[in-house]
Amino acid sequence: MSKVLIIMGSGSDLPYCEEISIALDELKLPHSLRVASAHKTPEEALKIVREAADKFKVIITVAGLSDSLSGFAAANTTLPVIAAPPLSKNFSGMDILSSLSMPRGVAPMTVLGASQAALAAAKIIALSDKNIEITLEKSLETSALRVRDMDEKVRDGKRKKT
Amino acid sequence: MSKVLIIMGSGSDLPYCEEISIALDELKLPHSLRVASAHKTPEEALKIVREAADKFKVIITVAGLSDSLSGFAAANTTLPVIAAPPLSKNFSGMDILSSLSMPRGVAPMTVLGASQAALAAAKIIALSDKNIEITLEKSLETSALRVRDMDEKVRDGKRKKT
Amino acid sequence: MSKVLIIMGSGSDLPYCEEISIALDELKLPHSLRVASAHKTPEEALKIVREAADKFKVIITVAGLSDSLSGFAAANTTLPVIAAPPLSKNFSGMDILSSLSMPRGVAPMTVLGASQAALAAAKIIALSDKNIEITLEKSLETSALRVRDMDEKVRDGKRKKT
Amino acid sequence: MSKVLIIMGSGSDLPYCEEISIALDELKLPHSLRVASAHKTPEEALKIVREAADKFKVIITVAGLSDSLSGFAAANTTLPVIAAPPLSKNFSGMDILSSLSMPRGVAPMTVLGASQAALAAAKIIALSDKNIEITLEKSLETSALRVRDMDEKVRDGKRKKT
Amino acid sequence: MSKVLIIMGSGSDLPYCEEISIALDELKLPHSLRVASAHKTPEEALKIVREAADKFKVIITVAGLSDSLSGFAAANTTLPVIAAPPLSKNFSGMDILSSLSMPRGVAPMTVLGASQAALAAAKIIALSDKNIEITLEKSLETSALRVRDMDEKVRDGKRKKT
Amino acid sequence: MSKVLIIMGSGSDLPYCEEISIALDELKLPHSLRVASAHKTPEEALKIVREAADKFKVIITVAGLSDSLSGFAAANTTLPVIAAPPLSKNFSGMDILSSLSMPRGVAPMTVLGASQAALAAAKIIALSDKNIEITLEKSLETSALRVRDMDEKVRDGKRKKT
Amino acid sequence: MSKVLIIMGSGSDLPYCEEISIALDELKLPHSLRVASAHKTPEEALKIVREAADKFKVIITVAGLSDSLSGFAAANTTLPVIAAPPLSKNFSGMDILSSLSMPRGVAPMTVLGASQAALAAAKIIALSDKNIEITLEKSLETSALRVRDMDEKVRDGKRKKT
Amino acid sequence: MSKVLIIMGSGSDLPYCEEISIALDELKLPHSLRVASAHKTPEEALKIVREAADKFKVIITVAGLSDSLSGFAAANTTLPVIAAPPLSKNFSGMDILSSLSMPRGVAPMTVLGASQAALAAAKIIALSDKNIEITLEKSLETSALRVRDMDEKVRDGKRKKT
Repeated sequence: MSKVLIIMGSGSDLPYCEEISIALDELKLPHSLRVASAHKTPEEALKIVREAADKFKVIITVAGLSDSLSGFAAANTTLPVIAAPPLSKNFSGMDILSSLSMPRGVAPMTVLGASQAALAAAKIIALSDKNIEITLEKSLETSALRVRDMDEKVRDGKRKKT
Repeated sequence: MSKVLIIMGSGSDLPYCEEISIALDELKLPHSLRVASAHKTPEEALKIVREAADKFKVIITVAGLSDSLSGFAAANTTLPVIAAPPLSKNFSGMDILSSLSMPRGVAPMTVLGASQAALAAAKIIALSDKNIEITLEKSLETSALRVRDMDEKVRDGKRKKT
Repeated sequence: MSKVLIIMGSGSDLPYCEEISIALDELKLPHSLRVASAHKTPEEALKIVREAADKFKVIITVAGLSDSLSGFAAANTTLPVIAAPPLSKNFSGMDILSSLSMPRGVAPMTVLGASQAALAAAKIIALSDKNIEITLEKSLETSALRVRDMDEKVRDGKRKKT
Repeated sequence: MSKVLIIMGSGSDLPYCEEISIALDELKLPHSLRVASAHKTPEEALKIVREAADKFKVIITVAGLSDSLSGFAAANTTLPVIAAPPLSKNFSGMDILSSLSMPRGVAPMTVLGASQAALAAAKIIALSDKNIEITLEKSLETSALRVRDMDEKVRDGKRKKT
Repeated sequence: MSKVLIIMGSGSDLPYCEEISIALDELKLPHSLRVASAHKTPEEALKIVREAADKFKVIITVAGLSDSLSGFAAANTTLPVIAAPPLSKNFSGMDILSSLSMPRGVAPMTVLGASQAALAAAKIIALSDKNIEITLEKSLETSALRVRDMDEKVRDGKRKKT
Repeated sequence: MSKVLIIMGSGSDLPYCEEISIALDELKLPHSLRVASAHKTPEEALKIVREAADKFKVIITVAGLSDSLSGFAAANTTLPVIAAPPLSKNFSGMDILSSLSMPRGVAPMTVLGASQAALAAAKIIALSDKNIEITLEKSLETSALRVRDMDEKVRDGKRKKT
Repeated sequence: MSKVLIIMGSGSDLPYCEEISIALDELKLPHSLRVASAHKTPEEALKIVREAADKFKVIITVAGLSDSLSGFAAANTTLPVIAAPPLSKNFSGMDILSSLSMPRGVAPMTVLGASQAALAAAKIIALSDKNIEITLEKSLETSALRVRDMDEKVRDGKRKKT
Repeated sequence: MSKVLIIMGSGSDLPYCEEISIALDELKLPHSLRVASAHKTPEEALKIVREAADKFKVIITVAGLSDSLSGFAAANTTLPVIAAPPLSKNFSGMDILSSLSMPRGVAPMTVLGASQAALAAAKIIALSDKNIEITLEKSLETSALRVRDMDEKVRDGKRKKT
């Protein structure tokens, strides 16, 4: 059964969502993808968000430019919503403020980076899924190990300067 | 009959909306106020936006912080939508990007300043309302006159430096 | 008869204006193009702006860098003026503030994106042109449909990850 | 039993943490407060973070200026970590980037606003706590109701302009 | 005879212009003030700018918010134009970009600060006015002297810490 | 005889200075180039700046990154100093603030763009050089003419959309 | 004997320098203050910087607005130079870039905050001064202790919410 | 014996560290490289930082994105710590604020540019190493000479414009 629902605001967000999807696969987290726009198909978006609690544990919202989708989703479900905006090229990426500046009562949680969004979702799932928790523990260890390995290579000066 | 519909996203936007309302009164433009949140009451917001074309000619949307309302309104009506975000204190006012960075097919028009938002609405109404057009012509003249008067006062050096 | 007047501040803005022009064509909106600089040919610009109300319903102003043209136009006609500044590469696009920071009595409406500028103009025209209104209604439907189609493709997982 | 652990990086973050604490109380979420600095007491911080999974379900990290604490916490526990940086007065609040720009493998979730941070935590707890879920459902309803009430007051023009 | 012409775009710029005026007085530079808006009274502004070369040597333009006046003036006279925008409170002062981002052929020179604008004007006048040149030489010396005096006071540790 | 002195802070600023040089040539303005760093060769820089008044009428300073040279030059000569910083790629070009944020008594005039810097210098020279004044008048006319020509081409719709 | 030389660019930087001075006193670091401007008294500034190596081990430069002094000092001495710019109110503090954006061969080290600047200087002195090293060790311990004390107070919930 | 310790937060910072390493080699400064993450391997990082004072005189910390490492290192050693963050592509490089916005008691010194970081380290070492001091003196001279040479080439107009 899917545990994570990724909603993207437009087809143009698909490549970023697929990055998230791959990262969720690596964490062995079944998930579903939907396209629904808070602007253009608000009724579908609302239906998807409102019914999500029956089938999912976390929603990841992906919307470029001005991100209306994350607040929209967060305000209409008790599920935790992770806003995962793809980094904008315009305005030095400052479009990200649209995911962050929320009114009282609306609280998406913003995460930059596709693999980081997947990881954040996994941490929430892990609270009630021992397997995912173990996967995450291993992942934390692997992360640390990779740093230690790199330290090994670098500290002995084995690596030649290019 | 009301011609301009002001929708605010929250009660906290009321003071700014009242500034717009006063400016519309000065331009003799009947108008209505509504409160509806693209986040919290999307169905009401949608209903208001979709039915607006029957009674109004222009919608002015007022939403602080991340402005979801303007894109939401613009995507669901053929009416022109003027995004009139109150200037945010956070992030040097850069929250305004949330009114501007719109996807293809969604086109609110952003105006800074309450009196300016009212004036922009009046210009659209004036296209089909000779009285408003005349009011606007006088207003343009008054604006110019005020500059000329100020020039009179200043150029003769009458005004003493403080 | 032309309904939209596009004024660009310089020949270098032509490519962006042609994008707007194509978008207006798609919306079946006849329009005219002019080049006039608020800086370099202010008298011509003023004449064009002041006479616009006889022949046009909306003015779209296009001026890169510091946008003087939009405020200049807005202050000299009762017509609605849409400021459509091409996104600047310098200063992370912050040149856009020159279209937004207007004094009392001057109220261009800023729209980012060529197709969005055309769409905003069309919405104003549609108030008095049933055909354009119908075109816009279809366009809104098509926009929503495109999201729904994309949702169909994505939700069944048919699309393979690349 | 406490479910949420708030860690602040310094005593100067206490007022903001107390705002979060009050918001958690309103949501009937038992919680604990700790002070530990990723800079100054990294061993204590590490111990607190590593042992948190035994007693808590969510960690909220509060660190002003450059926020090292959130990444530090997120990298050392499988628990979800909510970065809740108090908005900085310096640099237009751009210090918030230090909570957002995370490397692969480190994924705190950033939330602006004390009540919003509490709400985000509650949503995660609600996944395994029916009472909290019900509280949240009511809270969503109350939020919507407040907008509708405000709409009632405003639309009838009862409220006089000041 | 006046040598410097200060043009302000609106009466609200008068306090800043009076600061410039006082600074010009201190440099014994006769000057005139005018109010003319590139937006609202472009014909008057144009006339003032075009006739300035008969009576003045330098124009100082003062316009807050989006500064159209400086480019407008610079493009319509062979006189040097000093753009002296009062520092905006909005957008962290970034409105200053509207004085700086000029197209080819338009070259106002931007100076921040009222006394600095006056000084810059004086330097241009000094090229053909020996008295002003001497005043400026003395002013440079006084500036240096003030630093040296301060150094005297500070280095001996005479000044007690407060 | 040279009338404009271009000082660059480093050899890496040479390409930008050559752009200015070409623009000065087009305006028939003889000029000299020097390299002197306010950081690395302050005594040479000081000598060049202090002796400039004997031979030149305007100094153009060109220094990338943090621009110390412009304030340094402006504080040590009665000559007008035009700060012409090449637009920085780092920090969205915000390094330009280092040319603008000057203390009382130091007043370089900032101009963005190589041709604009040359033009600004020419306007100062023109105050005492009838030939340059005539060149500038022609240049203003040519600028306007170019806009009018472009208008001719565009308004008749002769130019086909690409 | 003084070990740290504080150079401020202007008398207006004195209050900030006195904060640094007090912090140095607390660390028992003898120090001297000088006022010298890279702009206005470059020869004195140069002399002070060049002779500093005879008497001091570290230079702290304090210059508001555009900071020319730090690069100027760093380029003219082998001593380490700490740039300690007071945080600017203009442009959201972005004037700090003028301390950071240095050319090859010029390397002041930027520190925000008066007490932090003093501490950074102390760390350099401590390399060759056992007493200062011990003071710093105690200071690190005290810092950690203060966090631990705060943790004691907060974790027991003794502190009542206000 | 190594005098400078470079700690990078991740293997992805290696290329930048190698630039620093090459610059240190040119200054004949023996140095060591380590990889340790304040996030992922805090215990190793802490051990490296705490033991550094036995073998090194300066630590250079290199961490991209949000820089936790520099504050972490600075808070746990009496050694001077130079924060040398590689310039970020995201957010116009504003991630650099994470190296600068430090709490009381934590004082890394920020330097932009790999060669500048090496030079800053050398200046600290030179306080107790006559050879390095001589190397630096030569380097200052060479820097000045290079500017003078460039001036020679440029002032005679020998260099042809391209």
